[in-house]
Amino acid sequence: MSAADQVLAHAQSDRGMASLHPNEFEAALLDCIAPWLGDGPPLPVIACGMVGARQGWAEAPYSLVPCPPLAAQARIAVSCHDPRLTLHIVGGVAQHTPSDVMRGEETQIAGLLAGSPAFAGVASLPGTHCKWVRIADGKIRHFRTFMTGELFNLLTTRSVLRFSVASDAWDEAAFLAAVAEAAARPDTVPGLLFPLRAASLLGDVAPSAVRARLSGLLIGAELAAARDLWQDTPVAMIGADRLARAYCAAVAALGGDVTLHEGTALTLAGLARARVLVADRP
Amino acid sequence: MSAADQVLAHAQSDRGMASLHPNEFEAALLDCIAPWLGDGPPLPVIACGMVGARQGWAEAPYSLVPCPPLAAQARIAVSCHDPRLTLHIVGGVAQHTPSDVMRGEETQIAGLLAGSPAFAGVASLPGTHCKWVRIADGKIRHFRTFMTGELFNLLTTRSVLRFSVASDAWDEAAFLAAVAEAAARPDTVPGLLFPLRAASLLGDVAPSAVRARLSGLLIGAELAAARDLWQDTPVAMIGADRLARAYCAAVAALGGDVTLHEGTALTLAGLARARVLVADRP
Repeated sequence: MSAADQVLAHAQSDRGMASLHPNEFEAALLDCIAPWLGDGPPLPVIACGMVGARQGWAEAPYSLVPCPPLAAQARIAVSCHDPRLTLHIVGGVAQHTPSDVMRGEETQIAGLLAGSPAFAGVASLPGTHCKWVRIADGKIRHFRTFMTGELFNLLTTRSVLRFSVASDAWDEAAFLAAVAEAAARPDTVPGLLFPLRAASLLGDVAPSAVRARLSGLLIGAELAAARDLWQDTPVAMIGADRLARAYCAAVAALGGDVTLHEGTALTLAGLARARVLVADRP
Repeated sequence: MSAADQVLAHAQSDRGMASLHPNEFEAALLDCIAPWLGDGPPLPVIACGMVGARQGWAEAPYSLVPCPPLAAQARIAVSCHDPRLTLHIVGGVAQHTPSDVMRGEETQIAGLLAGSPAFAGVASLPGTHCKWVRIADGKIRHFRTFMTGELFNLLTTRSVLRFSVASDAWDEAAFLAAVAEAAARPDTVPGLLFPLRAASLLGDVAPSAVRARLSGLLIGAELAAARDLWQDTPVAMIGADRLARAYCAAVAALGGDVTLHEGTALTLAGLARARVLVADRP
């Protein structure tokens, strides 16, 4: 962001695509930002993420790789009922081989490139669905998505393992040992999950180690499957929460060249870049 | 079972460990079998499975491998309030390296051994948690449990993939192709799950193939991790439902020597064997 791009106010809501019908998005947005609206010219709003999905406010198309993260043809203007607003939604990025899609991450990548236009390497965006995105020449070349975060959440809240991860303690040594074990022998991981439950039933494991070990096994298996993407190239890890820091530690432990970038700052930088693009070519 | 061991009546209930407190089991059992009770001597009841877990009717201890499936020291007599009943619960089997436990499967294995006392090989018991059990000299030597069934259920009902497996259709060719792909490269499987969702969003896959492909990827990864157990040895696949038939087809496609055994018949044969053991040594 330029020096002029300061955050003047922020607001958040837990109402997203899963809980809103398309015609309810504008009211949900106004619930957040109405206090910011005045009698001047309309406020330009730039949105990204699932708000542009088929079940979102309005569908913004995907750009196909290879493409810049904010390809003009994927952006849509959406008409609002409230005359104090104009709205543009940033489109996502898709890939056919293998099939993959993103919405929102492209904006963080645009933020990364706004600060480092010559970045060549891979961006990793941990979360419910972690994406590994190969970037070169200002374009997204290829990417792969892993459901590791969603799997971890399901296993720790809905599966038989939930009884064994009751402790919120985090044992970093158990995490890194499991990462190393899974990355070296990812084929064994399907057989290492139920033993976490059995080990806690039989008293074979410290309760505080189970959650970290499960996380390490799943992330280690992901890192093994994504090794061709992150090995021997700079890795920009995007996020700042415990999960992103855990991924960073795991990649570094396996010899990767990884740097942590604050995710919210990159989202804002990406949206600021999108605002410039919209002004150039509305 | 001997010729005298005929099924005279059967009853079932959906009330199990998850929905009953320990002091509610007897009433739940009587709801099922009260019509069978008369004024004669008490009816001997033999039970196996989660009824013997810590949260069950009464905890029956585990036997440690190697052990016969119905080791006497793991069996417990439970006193009932109703004088028309006597109850014994068959204990489970446990292993420390790696940590693992079973409850119920040991009874099916006892049923298998009742019919084939010299069986040497591996028994596979697909279900929520699939167990692979190495058997020799009438004993359980070693076993390994996979959460594949629970994982499939969570992914198809709770994860983002649920939107892509709406079709109940079963594409056997897609299943077997995915088994082969995952068994050959199990390390790639974590990266092949989200693409199922993306492929259906992008129209890259027939909707009828998604469920079978997901099942094949998970089962193929399990078969790769269990290969040391089932390769080059007879495999007794225990079950008769669609899942057991799918596992059978998968093992056979990978070159395994597999025979299907009806699971309920083996449970009854195992319980009949337990009844004889209880009569010998109550």
